[in-house]
Order: sequence, then C-alpha cells, then structure tokens
Amino acid sequence: MEKVLEYLKKNNKRFIAELCEYVRFPSVSAQPKHRKDLKNCADWLTRHCRQIGLHTRLCPTAGNSILVARTRKPSRTSSKKGKSSKPHYLVYGHYDVQPAEPFDLWDSPPFEPSLRGTALFARGASDNKGQHLAHLNAVEAYLKTGTELPCDLTFVIEGEEEVGSRNLTDFLADHRKDLQCDGVVISDTGLIGPRHPTLTHALRGICALEVKLTGPSRDLHSGIFGGSVGNPAMALCQLLAQLRDKDGRIAIPGFYRDVAPLSAAERKHLARHPFNETAYRKFLGVAQLEGERGYTPIEQRSARPTLEINGLTSGYQGEGSKTIIPSWASAKLTMRLVPNQTPERIAKLVTAHLRKLCPRSVRIEVQEGHGGEPYFVSPDGIRLQAGLRALKTAFGHDPVLMREGGSIPIVNDFKKTLGADTLLLGLALPDDNAHSPNEKFDLGIFAKGMTMSAYLWRELAAIA
Amino acid sequence: MEKVLEYLKKNNKRFIAELCEYVRFPSVSAQPKHRKDLKNCADWLTRHCRQIGLHTRLCPTAGNSILVARTRKPSRTSSKKGKSSKPHYLVYGHYDVQPAEPFDLWDSPPFEPSLRGTALFARGASDNKGQHLAHLNAVEAYLKTGTELPCDLTFVIEGEEEVGSRNLTDFLADHRKDLQCDGVVISDTGLIGPRHPTLTHALRGICALEVKLTGPSRDLHSGIFGGSVGNPAMALCQLLAQLRDKDGRIAIPGFYRDVAPLSAAERKHLARHPFNETAYRKFLGVAQLEGERGYTPIEQRSARPTLEINGLTSGYQGEGSKTIIPSWASAKLTMRLVPNQTPERIAKLVTAHLRKLCPRSVRIEVQEGHGGEPYFVSPDGIRLQAGLRALKTAFGHDPVLMREGGSIPIVNDFKKTLGADTLLLGLALPDDNAHSPNEKFDLGIFAKGMTMSAYLWRELAAIA
Repeated sequence: MEKVLEYLKKNNKRFIAELCEYVRFPSVSAQPKHRKDLKNCADWLTRHCRQIGLHTRLCPTAGNSILVARTRKPSRTSSKKGKSSKPHYLVYGHYDVQPAEPFDLWDSPPFEPSLRGTALFARGASDNKGQHLAHLNAVEAYLKTGTELPCDLTFVIEGEEEVGSRNLTDFLADHRKDLQCDGVVISDTGLIGPRHPTLTHALRGICALEVKLTGPSRDLHSGIFGGSVGNPAMALCQLLAQLRDKDGRIAIPGFYRDVAPLSAAERKHLARHPFNETAYRKFLGVAQLEGERGYTPIEQRSARPTLEINGLTSGYQGEGSKTIIPSWASAKLTMRLVPNQTPERIAKLVTAHLRKLCPRSVRIEVQEGHGGEPYFVSPDGIRLQAGLRALKTAFGHDPVLMREGGSIPIVNDFKKTLGADTLLLGLALPDDNAHSPNEKFDLGIFAKGMTMSAYLWRELAAIA
Repeated sequence: MEKVLEYLKKNNKRFIAELCEYVRFPSVSAQPKHRKDLKNCADWLTRHCRQIGLHTRLCPTAGNSILVARTRKPSRTSSKKGKSSKPHYLVYGHYDVQPAEPFDLWDSPPFEPSLRGTALFARGASDNKGQHLAHLNAVEAYLKTGTELPCDLTFVIEGEEEVGSRNLTDFLADHRKDLQCDGVVISDTGLIGPRHPTLTHALRGICALEVKLTGPSRDLHSGIFGGSVGNPAMALCQLLAQLRDKDGRIAIPGFYRDVAPLSAAERKHLARHPFNETAYRKFLGVAQLEGERGYTPIEQRSARPTLEINGLTSGYQGEGSKTIIPSWASAKLTMRLVPNQTPERIAKLVTAHLRKLCPRSVRIEVQEGHGGEPYFVSPDGIRLQAGLRALKTAFGHDPVLMREGGSIPIVNDFKKTLGADTLLLGLALPDDNAHSPNEKFDLGIFAKGMTMSAYLWRELAAIA
C-alpha cells in the first residue's frame, strides 16, 4: 500500500494535467452538435485506460459508446478454471456532461480548465470526469507499482447519463453475465464537506402523475355564465389543497402505510450532520422553511416522502385579464418515495383519492408518468462498513451516512439487472456547481478520492 | 303612427338590402389592416344618415371616428329660445365588428351576407350593425312620412366598441353639453326569444386581480430540496381553495355586505324565464351545474356576485414531467359584482383576505386590474316601463326583465358623464353567434325591432 500511496502522491501533477485534458472535450450529450466531441472524448478515455493497463473496449450503442475497462481479461469460457477468486466490483461513471449555457455566467470558458485556488474550474470537472478519474488513478497506482489489486474491477463509463442513460439498461441486460459482480461503486454524488466524507446509502424513489380537470366544452364568458357552472381551475385548487394537511403531511389514505420509520439511531446520526438553518433559508431565498411537522429539514428532504406540484396550467396566462371560466385545468405532480413505498401502489392510491374527491361538475383524467423505486442499503451492511472505513482512512475524519432526496435511476438498474447493491461515495462539494455555471472540482478532494479508492479495494477484499 | 308602420313594411326589402351593404365592410377594429375598411364603413354610415335626413357629423378621434347624427340641428347658442321642448334621447351603437377568424368555420364568407331561412348570416349582422340600423330605419320612417318625431334623437355610433371603446369616454366628456339627454337607448344585448322580448335592467360589475406567490429564488430540484421548503403552487391552491365554501359562497369576510338582496317579486319574475336545465348543461358541455346554494342558475349567473379563477400559471407546463418546486405561482381572478358592491371595496377585501391567509413560507403580491361598477335600473322606473310597453306592442308578447351577468362599461360611462340611465333593448337571439363563426341576425326580429323603436319614442314622450 505504501508504494501505491507514494505513486499517487508523486504523480499528482500529471493526474491534474490529465484531468485538464479530459475536461477540454465539450462532451455535451444533450446537444447533437457535440456528437463528434463525445466520440473524441470516449477515444481519449479508451487510450487512457489502455495506457494504465486495463483491458479496454469501447462498445457502440444506438447512442454514445459505453467504455468497458477491466483489470482482468474477460474469460472466453464459463469453466471454473478461468474464474478469479477475487471479488469483482463495477465502477460506474459517465464521460458526458451537462450543457454549459449560459456561457456569459462563467468566469472562465467552460471547456478551458482554469486553476483557481485549490479548484479546477471546467464543465464536467466534478460531474463526473474528475470523480471517476480518481478511481482510474488509484487503479493505475496499483498496476504501475506492481501491487496486487485485491479485487477484480470493471469500469463501465457511459456517455448518456445527462440525457437519461437511455442505452445503459439494455447494455447491462446484454452483458449481464460478463458484468456479474459483488457490488457497484459510484462516485457521482456529493459529500457534505472536506471534514465530512460522505456515504450515501439511500435514494428516494419517484412517481409522476398528471391530473386534468375538464369543465365546460370551451372557455366560457365569466360574466354571462359565471356563477352557474363549475370552474375547473377552482376545482383543481380545491382538489390539490386537500392533498396536504396543516402538519405538512400527505392527506391521502394509505400513503404512509409502507413507509419504513426512521430508526432512533439514524435520526441521531442525521442530527449530527452540519446544518445551519439560516444559511439554508438564505440559500433557498425563503423567509421561512416549511415541511412535515416532527421531522428536521434534513429528514424531510431525504428520508420522508413528499407530494409536490411541479406545474399548474389553466386558462389565460398572458398580460392583463381575460374574463373566462377556463374549459380545463391541469397539474403535474411528483411524489418522492422512501422505502418501502412503490411507485405503482402510490400512483394507484393518489389516483383513486383524486377521483374520489373530484366534484361531479368536472371530468377528471389522471395520466401516469414515470416511476422509480426508492433505494436503500442498510447502514449495517458489511460492504457499506468497508466503504466507511476507506473514507475515514483517506479523509482522516469520521464519515457520515447520508440519504439523498433525489433519484439515481441507474442504481435501480444495477440492482434489477445485476442484483448488485451500490456504494455511493461522492466527491462533489456542495458548492461545486454541478449543472450550473462555474462548475469546479476541488483538487484536494481529488487526491483524497484516489486514496479512498486505493483503500476501498483492500477493505472490500477483506470482507469477502 | 299608421304611416310610419306602413313605411317600415313597404321598405322592408330595401332595409335588408342596406343591411347587406353595411355588413360587407370588414370593419374589424382589432386588426390594423382593416383601418381603411373602418373608414369606408363610417363613410357609408354617414351618407346613409344624411340620406335619411339626419344632421350628421363624423367626428375624428385618436382612433376610429365617432358618428353623431341628430334629428334636430344642434343650437349654436345656449339661449332658451333654441331649446326644444321634446325629450332628448341618445341612441348608441357601434359599426366595428369582432374578427371573423377562424374563417374555415363559417358556412358562408363572413363579409358576404348570406340569406338562409329567416336569417342573414354575416359578421356584424347582429353585433351590432343590424341592431342600430333598426333604430335608424324607424327614424327614417318618421322623417320620410312627415310624421313628427315625439323625441329629439342623437345617434352616437362608434368604431371601437370591440376594442374597449377607448376614445368614447373622452368624447362624451368633451361633448357633455351637446349630448345632455333624458336617457340612452342601446340595442346591443340579447333577447330571450321571439316570444320573450327582453329589457335588460341590470349588469354586473367587475373587479380584476392578479395574485402571485413567490417561494424559493429559483426553481428547485424537487428531489434534493422537496419536503423542506414550501411549494408556491401548493400554497396558491390552498389559498384559492379557501375562497369558496361548500355551498358555493365566496368565503371572504364582508364580501356580501353590500349586496342588495333579490326581492321576492324579482325572483318570481326570473323564475318565469324560459330555462331548461338539461339543454343548458348540454350547451355548456357539463355533466352537472354548480353554483351558490339557494339560488337558481339564472339568479346565480346574473344577480349574484362571483369569484372566478380565469387563469393559473406555475412551474413546468410542457410535455412529460420536470421535477421541480416552482419558484412562483400566479392566478388571475375576476369578481363579478352586483348592486351595491363597488370594485374598490371588493379589491380591498379580497386582497386583505389573501394576505391574511397566505403562509409565511411564500411571499404574496396582489396586483389590481380593471374595475367596473355594477349597473341597475329599478324595474319600477317610468322610462323602463315605457320601454316594456314598446316591446309588448311590437312583439305581441309580454316582455321579460333580465339582468345581464356581464358588464357593459359604456353604460357606466353614460351614467357618469351624462348622468343618464340606459334602456337596454337587445335584439340578438341566443343563437346569433355574436363573436363566433356563423354570426347571424334574424330578419323577423329586425322588423320587430324597427316597430319597437317607432313605438318607443312615442312611449318615452308620453311620460315626459
């Protein structure tokens, strides 16, 4: 291990230079004009993985190619002979980036890396190029120093994460056998701060619905008809208003039935997270927070289910006024789910309740949107504990366990297709500006991420 | 009178031909490309009024000209000598029309009059060219038969009614002295049916507001932050939902304080109006009506105040879903007012109540829009009774008194500027399609309208 750490230290400058090279590719998957840049970026990454000494293949898909790079040559036969005795882990990352617009809000051009203070500013530096490069650097250190890697590793680095990973699910299904593994490691989440290395062990699920109420067959003159006919916009407001009670709880029968209660231990752990309410309010721009009574904001936004209105549309939206009773009104809703809620059951419950509450003066349509399961790994799990030990050793601070309020659909894909749990060891600081102008990646965290990765494989091998 | 009626009968074909000429002008005030057509139309009308024998002036304004045509030469001096002993009435109308789009929904071209059955189909036939032409024809009959007109009449026919009569108020103020009168007559409303000649004696007022709730300083990720921060769209729904109770009453303290109760006599009269609920539901396209408990649909839509949401806007409105907590949500509201409510007081009440109910997690802004007083003439008034007698004689049926749910701002202008009440003697049938494709005007009603006008001046002179 000495040699590995020594190598990482000695080559730090080169690693930064390589990260600079890597972020120069404007690999924006959302914009067709960057198709070529994505290809060039993938080619660069392929060459880089080969130089390290990985068995690397760039696999074409219907969209952008997926890179697969292995520490161990894939066996051609299914005989036991060819099998390794080491545990096998997948490291996932993505080489595509978010659009950089609006360019004028950047202090330096998004695709010309700029070192300021301890951070490298560039689109993709933190999300996600710097983060998976940390893992690749750790592996390089093992390979180049002749130190035996305690695990077999397969890097799966795709080019369509920012546009919904549309070809990854099929790819995983097609390569199910080759990618069979003991677990997945992803560094694509956040850490609370340099003194709070973070392991994310839970993600919320999601359930999207659209509800539309239709009243009269066309917009009506509100003078001539107003008062004698139901107004779909008012009906919608009255319908949605009933979905949330005064305590901030979702007032839908059965909504909380499957919710796994937060353990006293976890609540205690979450209460130790650094959190400044004033700063949080200021960051959001609100005078007062609002949430489910009896839970802290951290719990509310990560460990409790929600129902949010994402959009409202009805009637006239232009300048001034138009005196109509709108023919229809609609709302987009998403529910965030926690273990053990399922999007199917929640969609059913919410739909049934909306239909039940809807007055007869309007017609209701509920359209189901996308759904995603919540994700949860027990904090007691041995792999998770191994991850925590690696974090502690690398950062020199007690790591914290975090639940993420959002969803990362690929984590469910890995679980469903490969049966593997995921360790989410994020290296992005809260102010790294992922998806925003002036994205940056802290180079101190970059170095600690490599060390963490180096320790991680030892820890994970030790429990096998 | 014999001679007058005889003249109207004998010249009926020519009157129809003249109406055809008149509606051929595409005098669409909302569309700048028709500016020339409006001028040509006003010129035609000026020539027509002069041919009848009226003292006619086409008065330029900042917009389209206003035609003033008098049966009596205006006196140059203010001496008593020049004054008439006859009562003086104003007849208002407008020569501009609504846009005819969408053209493809018309069965015949909108500006090529087409006679089908007993109706003339053309844009403007009913709203309002045919209706004020009926009055002009009656006056022509008096003048051309040498029959003494029992009243002095001044026609004021403008070209901007469909775009808000923006130059009429100033015009009335500038000509206050010349236009001093005993009353105003307008045929620009509806009649319930050929067997139910109708006098509209009340109009609802209006008060428009826009309410906007702002939460976080930008749209937030509903996964990362959802649950810990107030959602302005939900706050708006909960706010607006509280404005209307289960009985369909507006739940704003003081809202009904100034409402003049409906008299038993008027309710009895309104109950005799022909009304078929099934047909009304079918016409509106709703499965069930909804309104203030304890009132009939006719009362609800004309004699009771309302609060309507005219539009809702918040967050994402495109295809699919966007998982955000919207930064803001807004609603357009209009209240319809009845005597003796005032738009100023209602705006104050509603605003104060909204502010009081608004949760502290969002910021509220209320913007006041336009307002208009309700209008009411007592059914016992002698001029109104004279109008009813003229209707009965001309149509051969007992006339009905109606309240109109909408507003006609010019009626308040006449009251405010000239101190004159208005007799609303509408000649449009419910299926005349004003403002819609296939507008038509019933030629039987056209003829009866002329007769009614002929009798009206006699009835009005008799009470003076």
